[in-house]
Amino acid sequence: MGELVLAADLGGTNLRMAVVGRSGNVEHRSRCSTPRGNDPVTIINAVADLASECRKSIGQERLTSTIGVAAPVIVNAQNGTVYKAPNIPALNGFPFAARLSDRLGLKIVLENDATAAAVGEHWLGAARDFENAICVTLGTGVGGGIILWGRLLRGPDGTAGEIGHICVEPNGHQCGCGSWGCLEQYSSATAVVRIAGELAHENGLPSPPDLNAEKLFKAAKLGDTIAVAAFRRAGYYLGIALADIINVLDPDVIVLAGGMSGSWEVFIDETRDQIAKRAFRLPALRAKLVRAELGDDAGILGVARLAFAAHDQGQLES
Amino acid sequence: MGELVLAADLGGTNLRMAVVGRSGNVEHRSRCSTPRGNDPVTIINAVADLASECRKSIGQERLTSTIGVAAPVIVNAQNGTVYKAPNIPALNGFPFAARLSDRLGLKIVLENDATAAAVGEHWLGAARDFENAICVTLGTGVGGGIILWGRLLRGPDGTAGEIGHICVEPNGHQCGCGSWGCLEQYSSATAVVRIAGELAHENGLPSPPDLNAEKLFKAAKLGDTIAVAAFRRAGYYLGIALADIINVLDPDVIVLAGGMSGSWEVFIDETRDQIAKRAFRLPALRAKLVRAELGDDAGILGVARLAFAAHDQGQLES
Repeated sequence: MGELVLAADLGGTNLRMAVVGRSGNVEHRSRCSTPRGNDPVTIINAVADLASECRKSIGQERLTSTIGVAAPVIVNAQNGTVYKAPNIPALNGFPFAARLSDRLGLKIVLENDATAAAVGEHWLGAARDFENAICVTLGTGVGGGIILWGRLLRGPDGTAGEIGHICVEPNGHQCGCGSWGCLEQYSSATAVVRIAGELAHENGLPSPPDLNAEKLFKAAKLGDTIAVAAFRRAGYYLGIALADIINVLDPDVIVLAGGMSGSWEVFIDETRDQIAKRAFRLPALRAKLVRAELGDDAGILGVARLAFAAHDQGQLES
Repeated sequence: MGELVLAADLGGTNLRMAVVGRSGNVEHRSRCSTPRGNDPVTIINAVADLASECRKSIGQERLTSTIGVAAPVIVNAQNGTVYKAPNIPALNGFPFAARLSDRLGLKIVLENDATAAAVGEHWLGAARDFENAICVTLGTGVGGGIILWGRLLRGPDGTAGEIGHICVEPNGHQCGCGSWGCLEQYSSATAVVRIAGELAHENGLPSPPDLNAEKLFKAAKLGDTIAVAAFRRAGYYLGIALADIINVLDPDVIVLAGGMSGSWEVFIDETRDQIAKRAFRLPALRAKLVRAELGDDAGILGVARLAFAAHDQGQLES
């Protein structure tokens, strides 16, 4: 029974890898930029290079033969291919797990990054004392992960937890998924910037160039009317989706993660208000709404946990 | 280990009881009207009378000491009181399980009727071969039940599964739950009649007196424009909510139950269309959308199943 696993977070911008122990201790870290372009092999190569560096620094004998990889993709659980990869287009439809496994000689656990973050927060972060936890990652998009009875809900296709694609406005903004009015179109970092532009336009104001969610957050804290209204709208729609989740799943805790959760103070009142107005009182009182605690490490730690579980399951079966 | 349980379906109109065996065999049935008024004791008395009749006809020795009761209420799982009972107001806030238990000398399993129906359909009906099943009951209101990994999701408060209170129109029709635009306000039998009235009004037509969902269904089958449009609107919003469920839970099967499911043919195409347009393709292809098979018996059989489970658990613990 190996004491360490490799765990990677393959993002749209950066690829990070860590060597993680059974109590979540990080023994080594390594990173590079995520290769651009349409060739998935360049991504396989980058992962292999980091893995090789990690193996050298730690020593092969302490490592299990499993690597966990969290990525902003939806994985088809039936065949391990990448089903959707909007932020890493090179991986669309690519049998990433199988090819990476061939290259590294390791067993691969490939998981959606928001799902992995939910597992991480449940293992060592804000959801660690709770049996039923929902994690919503508010970043470029909106991802999610669901833990029920202490167990990760993947669903038979591995696609469960897509909280960002709850419909909050039936004739709303078109979403990259093909639908309209998904939560992702209102409460992601991308969306709040778009909404600010729309509000500026409605008010006959010019949209500031190079606006991003951080600048908008600073403006909101300074009381800028448009910025405040944009974050309130994001918070409003998040509250609608979370009220749905509370009515349907009755969770103990809802953890908000991702870049946008850093702007918590400028949208959370509106979110709480909508939950109070829309969800059943009993489960709404139960469901604690909290910020994630693990920051950027949630996904890497979560997928390390899943890698240990897969490794131990493999040991049991062999 | 008793071979039979008592199982009751306490509806807004009728109270039905059955003696049910371990394979779902119904050995005896009994029924009466649900007492009206504000006194919960009259309801306790009515249940006790039916139970007494069932016990006499079957013989005490074949019965377990557990009775299951399905009712259109939300039960507070923490203390067994009725948390919400819109259709049986006498039970609002009443410690129904405790009082009934005192009166009958039996262990009570009190469950929301739509949740019980989900258990019934999973045990013996349309969801019986599936691990992950959603049951949506389209009746006076819209109820729901969720089975994941073959297990009923109640949630820590016992309120999980309230699919009828997914928001499908954020500024929509006010709901009895206090929120706005809940699925229940668009896809219940009550809602489709209201929508038909609204459409008639919009078109300058008189609203037919004494309209109900059955009459509307007949009119829709004959091609009445308003009736067809009303059912399509109900189907449209149902599709939005089911796409949410598919994206979030990735179920194997979605079972439609309740009176409105009898009108399936006039709304299901619109529902399927919205699912196809809004849900992720992979889980949407998986999720079979089917009609319930157990009719009025789904709740009684489901709660019988739960009563057996509680009984057997009690035997284990004693």
